[in-house]
Amino acid sequence: MPETRARRAVVLASGGLDSTTCLAVAAAAGFEIYSLTFDYGQRHRVELEAAERCAKAFNATQHLVIKFDLRAMGGSALTSAVEVPKGRDESEMTSDIPNTYVPARNTIFLSFALGWAEVLNSSDIFIGVNAVDYSGYPDCRPEFIAQFQRLAEVATKAGIEGSTPNIHTPLLPLRKSEIIALGVNLGVDYSMTHSCYDPDELGFACGQCDSCILRRQGFADAGVPDPTRYSTSPR
Amino acid sequence: MPETRARRAVVLASGGLDSTTCLAVAAAAGFEIYSLTFDYGQRHRVELEAAERCAKAFNATQHLVIKFDLRAMGGSALTSAVEVPKGRDESEMTSDIPNTYVPARNTIFLSFALGWAEVLNSSDIFIGVNAVDYSGYPDCRPEFIAQFQRLAEVATKAGIEGSTPNIHTPLLPLRKSEIIALGVNLGVDYSMTHSCYDPDELGFACGQCDSCILRRQGFADAGVPDPTRYSTSPR
Repeated sequence: MPETRARRAVVLASGGLDSTTCLAVAAAAGFEIYSLTFDYGQRHRVELEAAERCAKAFNATQHLVIKFDLRAMGGSALTSAVEVPKGRDESEMTSDIPNTYVPARNTIFLSFALGWAEVLNSSDIFIGVNAVDYSGYPDCRPEFIAQFQRLAEVATKAGIEGSTPNIHTPLLPLRKSEIIALGVNLGVDYSMTHSCYDPDELGFACGQCDSCILRRQGFADAGVPDPTRYSTSPR
Repeated sequence: MPETRARRAVVLASGGLDSTTCLAVAAAAGFEIYSLTFDYGQRHRVELEAAERCAKAFNATQHLVIKFDLRAMGGSALTSAVEVPKGRDESEMTSDIPNTYVPARNTIFLSFALGWAEVLNSSDIFIGVNAVDYSGYPDCRPEFIAQFQRLAEVATKAGIEGSTPNIHTPLLPLRKSEIIALGVNLGVDYSMTHSCYDPDELGFACGQCDSCILRRQGFADAGVPDPTRYSTSPR
């Protein structure tokens, strides 16, 4: 049987629960992993170390960190001194876009991924967006991804030549507990990952921001022990 | 008559001939200017100074420089040690995408513009793309802009709330000579602008890259004296 060379995939990796599961899916499907992380001035900088750990764990060929400063632009609690909201329930999360929303973040991230995929001659981009248990961000919805896919077809030389990358969103329709179950089956060690928007100096999760609440509930629903180190007990 | 407050526009400004003309159009239409420039590791760094001069000349309220390093990604003569092509004629430029193409550059630039527009509560983005006298880049074509406009409608909170920014492309259908004529009529001092992809240490234009050739021909066709300082005589 002829040996086939693994196809290259650019995987957007934040070191969080979702993107790490996405990394596991891409690796399990046999792709050669090119992990892409952004250092954009986020307050939860501990996620940058998590992203690097996770890329290593899945034998990424390259882990590229692109750095820019969204703080200069403002507009989000994640990049400013504004308080991250705490203790919201899930109905509040789905009805209201919180101040942790970073304007155009996934558009920016996917744009860089599109450029890197073209340089790497890769036709596969993985992004761990999820539109079920999420914070209501507009750029996590299927209609956003579908439209970015259409943009990609006309935006690059590769697109014009008929090799537009496919944007894979394996987690899009899954509940958080299902994402965790999938990751556990693929061997993800979730203690490597970081989700909290507002960790303390030691990197302990706050346990009360949207991201912590969704994560904690996901582990409970999945019946999987939660390996997260929280600085507070559950509310 | 009630005083009306000027609307804010985000203008992508590279310090070049096209984007500076675009800045002049936005200013002439009465917009309050927010100028956005990218320091992405381009070899023609003198354009960063030109962009700042031009923003000042049109009384920009803010001139924001976003810095990131596309050299880490590779894939373009503009961000690497690869030679910039010289002496191509215009038919070569329209049939072939040259190695000065930067993968996904305008997608990345417009993504940041979209984010900043949302933070500024602005519903107008200006970009000086031109699909007539240009280097054949895919992300300068009308179909690219139209798809980005559709993406903007689903990508942001502003879009969901029905206030998607309009992406203005006033130069899209103009010849280079027409762009220059328009700019001269709006008071642009083109000696402030920089177009060359491969300037020498003193900032003199090479006169032989695509960008210089199109610029030089544009001035000749427009019957406007070319204020550019070239290091070489015309070929």
